[in-house]
Amino acid sequence: MSGDISLKAIGVVRTANKTREETPVQPSRAVGIEGTVEVFPEYEKGLDGLERFSHVFLICCFDRAGPAELTVTPHGRTERRGVFATRAPDRPNPIGLSLVRLLRREGTVLHVSDVDILDGTPLLDVKPYVAELDSRND
Amino acid sequence: MSGDISLKAIGVVRTANKTREETPVQPSRAVGIEGTVEVFPEYEKGLDGLERFSHVFLICCFDRAGPAELTVTPHGRTERRGVFATRAPDRPNPIGLSLVRLLRREGTVLHVSDVDILDGTPLLDVKPYVAELDSRND
Repeated sequence: MSGDISLKAIGVVRTANKTREETPVQPSRAVGIEGTVEVFPEYEKGLDGLERFSHVFLICCFDRAGPAELTVTPHGRTERRGVFATRAPDRPNPIGLSLVRLLRREGTVLHVSDVDILDGTPLLDVKPYVAELDSRND
Repeated sequence: MSGDISLKAIGVVRTANKTREETPVQPSRAVGIEGTVEVFPEYEKGLDGLERFSHVFLICCFDRAGPAELTVTPHGRTERRGVFATRAPDRPNPIGLSLVRLLRREGTVLHVSDVDILDGTPLLDVKPYVAELDSRND
């Protein structure tokens, strides 16, 4: 791998979470918080059939993250931990992964719930949640 | 969001999957397939505490994907579907998301299982799998 990897926003996430401080850090606090995902019109065909899934992963860019830190103190903890053992945003590549409930799709707009994402966050990818791939019991 | 988002590889994934054709497309076929994740030495501190998790998400760059297509025919299907309703690699941002079992960590090397990733794939991020965040039953 030589050089950088260049990605582009394919949309933007709209939520009531206007600042980092008021954005839920725990998914249990995000339950029921609704938002919309506005996918840019040129990608509309890429959403065909997404409505068959109850949940989707949103892969976003933490565009307001601070400088990357290799160790962080997780919320509610006292000891520092490696950033890759946390979901903290200040990471070497500021990529966020959120599983949200897909309420409905209207064209390029996804209505979603359980959203722990800052308003205005750039969207990089949408993937369907498939329990066989994404869920483990042990 | 103006302009591109620039990311960098933080490591590389090593597996026996040498070509796209021989790489499992179904997680059920990847069960037991072992591999290693070689995180670059400068990020070692970021892995502290990761060993407490049984599974981790690997976020990778599909570096051998073809040009992005907005609709694809999923493996084993006949009708085309929007790429965001699939996990196909030829997507606008070639980002891969794989949930793997973490067998053990040796310094900067993660020994993992259930790996559906091509050998040599650049690693962008590692996140712990937290059932409360990442699993849904309905």
